[in-house]
Amino acid sequence: MDNLEKMRHTLSHVLAAAVRELYPTASFGIGPAIDNGFYYDIDFGDTKISDTDLPKIEKKMRGIVARKLDMIKRVVTKTEALDWARDHQQNYKIELINELPEDAEISFYDLGDIFTDLCKGPHVKNTKDVGAFKLVRVAGAYWRGDEKREMLTRIYGVAFSTEEELAAYLKQQEEAKARDHRKLGKELDLFCFSDLVGAGLPLFTPRGTELRELMANYSLSLRGREGFKKVWTPHITKTDLYKTSGHYAKFGDELFMVHSQVSGEDFAMKPMNCPHHAQIFASRPRTYRDMPVRYMEATTDYRDEKTGELGGLSRVRSLTQDDSHVFCMTTQIKDEVKRLVSIVKELYSTMGMQKLRARLSYRSDEDKYLGDKKLWEMAQKQIKQAAIDNGLDYFEQEGEAAFYGPKIDFMAEDALGREHQLATIQLDFVQPERFGLEFINSKGEKERPVMIHHATLGSIERFLSVFIEHTGGWFPFWCAPEQVRIVTVNDQVSDYVSQIVTVLDEIILNKPLKYNELRYAIDDSADSLGKKIKRATEMKIPVLLIIGPKDAEEGIVSIRLRDKEEKIKLTKLADYLRGL
Amino acid sequence: MDNLEKMRHTLSHVLAAAVRELYPTASFGIGPAIDNGFYYDIDFGDTKISDTDLPKIEKKMRGIVARKLDMIKRVVTKTEALDWARDHQQNYKIELINELPEDAEISFYDLGDIFTDLCKGPHVKNTKDVGAFKLVRVAGAYWRGDEKREMLTRIYGVAFSTEEELAAYLKQQEEAKARDHRKLGKELDLFCFSDLVGAGLPLFTPRGTELRELMANYSLSLRGREGFKKVWTPHITKTDLYKTSGHYAKFGDELFMVHSQVSGEDFAMKPMNCPHHAQIFASRPRTYRDMPVRYMEATTDYRDEKTGELGGLSRVRSLTQDDSHVFCMTTQIKDEVKRLVSIVKELYSTMGMQKLRARLSYRSDEDKYLGDKKLWEMAQKQIKQAAIDNGLDYFEQEGEAAFYGPKIDFMAEDALGREHQLATIQLDFVQPERFGLEFINSKGEKERPVMIHHATLGSIERFLSVFIEHTGGWFPFWCAPEQVRIVTVNDQVSDYVSQIVTVLDEIILNKPLKYNELRYAIDDSADSLGKKIKRATEMKIPVLLIIGPKDAEEGIVSIRLRDKEEKIKLTKLADYLRGL
Repeated sequence: MDNLEKMRHTLSHVLAAAVRELYPTASFGIGPAIDNGFYYDIDFGDTKISDTDLPKIEKKMRGIVARKLDMIKRVVTKTEALDWARDHQQNYKIELINELPEDAEISFYDLGDIFTDLCKGPHVKNTKDVGAFKLVRVAGAYWRGDEKREMLTRIYGVAFSTEEELAAYLKQQEEAKARDHRKLGKELDLFCFSDLVGAGLPLFTPRGTELRELMANYSLSLRGREGFKKVWTPHITKTDLYKTSGHYAKFGDELFMVHSQVSGEDFAMKPMNCPHHAQIFASRPRTYRDMPVRYMEATTDYRDEKTGELGGLSRVRSLTQDDSHVFCMTTQIKDEVKRLVSIVKELYSTMGMQKLRARLSYRSDEDKYLGDKKLWEMAQKQIKQAAIDNGLDYFEQEGEAAFYGPKIDFMAEDALGREHQLATIQLDFVQPERFGLEFINSKGEKERPVMIHHATLGSIERFLSVFIEHTGGWFPFWCAPEQVRIVTVNDQVSDYVSQIVTVLDEIILNKPLKYNELRYAIDDSADSLGKKIKRATEMKIPVLLIIGPKDAEEGIVSIRLRDKEEKIKLTKLADYLRGL
Repeated sequence: MDNLEKMRHTLSHVLAAAVRELYPTASFGIGPAIDNGFYYDIDFGDTKISDTDLPKIEKKMRGIVARKLDMIKRVVTKTEALDWARDHQQNYKIELINELPEDAEISFYDLGDIFTDLCKGPHVKNTKDVGAFKLVRVAGAYWRGDEKREMLTRIYGVAFSTEEELAAYLKQQEEAKARDHRKLGKELDLFCFSDLVGAGLPLFTPRGTELRELMANYSLSLRGREGFKKVWTPHITKTDLYKTSGHYAKFGDELFMVHSQVSGEDFAMKPMNCPHHAQIFASRPRTYRDMPVRYMEATTDYRDEKTGELGGLSRVRSLTQDDSHVFCMTTQIKDEVKRLVSIVKELYSTMGMQKLRARLSYRSDEDKYLGDKKLWEMAQKQIKQAAIDNGLDYFEQEGEAAFYGPKIDFMAEDALGREHQLATIQLDFVQPERFGLEFINSKGEKERPVMIHHATLGSIERFLSVFIEHTGGWFPFWCAPEQVRIVTVNDQVSDYVSQIVTVLDEIILNKPLKYNELRYAIDDSADSLGKKIKRATEMKIPVLLIIGPKDAEEGIVSIRLRDKEEKIKLTKLADYLRGL
């Protein structure tokens, strides 16, 4: 356990001690250290605790810390432990002690002489070493995560080694809150939900649709350039497909089941597209000359997620995957993986998320893996070489592979320093077998292809949830749903606005996605200029063209970007915008 | 009844007479005239009849016709009719006679003195007037369409006034068979089916996907130009949405029901998109300045069709609709309908289906229609004016409107002269009411918008089934999945082929759809030139560039189109292809 974790763990004891002083009848569950801090689950009896109680508890904690109390470990017998818990009416602790194995070492930690808790430790030696902390929120939590047991009150704190780190973390949290994609999604009119449609099923408005299509089309264009061909597959299938692929046995309970009232047949909504693509591969005879066969799609899959886990676009029931599948010969693995890695690098670089880490997941010596071990070894070598050739920042993990093949997962860092696992490249030796896929090799014999699964953005909805927060809604010029807004100063400039419109209509942007006509709007309403600029700024339009009579007279446009203003000749406008 | 119908009806009696002579124990069901001909449902007892028996029966029919027999009507009493049927062991006729109302006139038709049948007529006077005919096929048909009753043998014949018309019809049928989109879909590698996925759920290969996307994108581009904005909606929804819209009560048994194993909620797959679009309209406050609000999508709907009715792409369970919805003020109906009509005209003209008829469907005086009658009348006037303004070939039908509003349906004629109902424009006064949609009008009051439903291609799958047969798979240059194939004469031209490729890579086609890079392939395999040309012709590639050493030497390309060949300078190639 590293020191920061010890500090956080000690703070959970300090929290409990503070609570005990303020609420003497409170009884305690468990209080671990967690990422970024600590919590304690506490039963306050009939007393209702809310966020407004936190300053009082925190103040009490600071008083305890200031007393520089030692944390002292004390080994006890089970009988002594139970006696102590009974004496202090700590029923949750009694339950915990009773469940300990007979031969377990049982220890208490005394916080000076003011508070004792059943605990394995370890802890810092003295409360002067707990670092910087802050209580942040109260939540409900079932005892032992069991919804049939008591509902306890969980108090969360954040804690870091120094005040500076704590301040930086709290600032990042505040920034993340301001950038919350659910909030921005509403403010920027990107998507909405409807109670009649259901949770986890977002509807995309025109602006949000523009954004998601630009993302999807960019991903498709990169893959198209690398020889992937678009295919189209329906959203439902007979369950037979997943029974054959093996998904039914493994993921059957995550499937949305579809029933035909007419024929009585059982269908499922597709949760992934690989078995469908395998069917297209299998629809005609293939030879080595056709290989690799590369299919891509940007299609919506459906997964039966728990309602409680649905939130904005981070987790949805309708997830649109920018899915690709390569069917190749075993000798082609490295080149195909290299191709896919280069796509991932280019896409995330365009998105301003250059910092990518890749985890190469290999098999371990366990026998849970399917497929020939030699094939695995050869494939793992090829994957690693592809990572090296592409200059990837990678690390290797044995035992992390899927049962059907080794893989590469990509972690992208956003503007707030948070890492998100998005793109993936997975080899598959099993589905080709199960579907009996084959091609005629150069010797005229039947041979089984290897399948490579790849998603670049992953789920477009989830990627958008990251990208909206990464950009704070200030989308790069190329993918802003409304790129330019003309704002008129008064109603005397309509002729000049027409001239500007003629220029804008001619502009086609070709980077990073080809053939995009400029997306602009005109606000020539009778509202005040201030109001019109405020409105456009709230919508985070990257380019405002503010047009008054003086601009018209001089053939000038006043440009306002997020971070600067400038005036340029109308004749230079097209080049200016193309260069953004 | 027109004369052709009388001729066909008489032929069904001649068919029965011929069958009776050849199979004396046959008993007869019914034998009506139908589009293009006639049939008779007959119980042959234990004798099995197949298409190979038709020449013999047809020969017997021609013998009867040649005898120039009169068709004579004879009114009888019910008792006489039953006696006759019993005497002749015609049990099906007994059943029919017994069901006739007591006061019905019962008549027999005598075919000369050789055959008598229960029949209301009318008929031609003499068998010399039956025109030209041919028996075409045998099928099974349940007595009275009831699958619990006897399975009879249905013999189909086609018949026309003249031999020329019959020959033309048979030729058209043969042509239609050669163009069958299911056959071409396989030959041209456009789509496939998988038993594991299910009937009515096509999977589109790369070529088919190219084609369907070009169709969808062209439709979207026309609508985009007219101010429609793309939205995106999920494929499932809580059934609440359709309960509110009213679709559940009307079409509930055509819905694919979706069940969540996790939450227990009931969902349905969307069979249309209007209620989803209404939810997006309702997601923010709207004012008269926002109106009309125009949404479009090309999204896949699911309908639980009977398995027996599924065939190729004509009827599928997964139908992708190029759906639009306008939310407008009542004063804007005419302009919006005009806008939509102009889109329909332009699209079908591009597809080579200029011959369009439009049916304007109005309400009748029945009270099955919802919504204010004055609103209906005003709307019907606006629709008609829009039809006139657009120069539509239209006809009006009272009583054909949907219960929720008047509509325009478009019938497009294909290259074989067959009419297909594809595009539609439907007004809707009911859904805005049910969803409580509103906008603030210029007086600051709440007002209800009118909704206009529109599909341009209709279902893309169904449109493709028509379009593939309309073109016979020889797609227009702009939408051929592979537009150009370079075919090499031998292996000495690779440098010159690279030069040609450089030219092709630069070509962007902008008509009728903008920004399309040329889609080409190269066949430089070692096969013979003849084999390579045959292969390309079988795939119906519109442009072949046949490149030999002499072409390379002279800087020439030999172009082979479907109907001509020519040689042009490589420097002229780009302009030539752009001009196709």
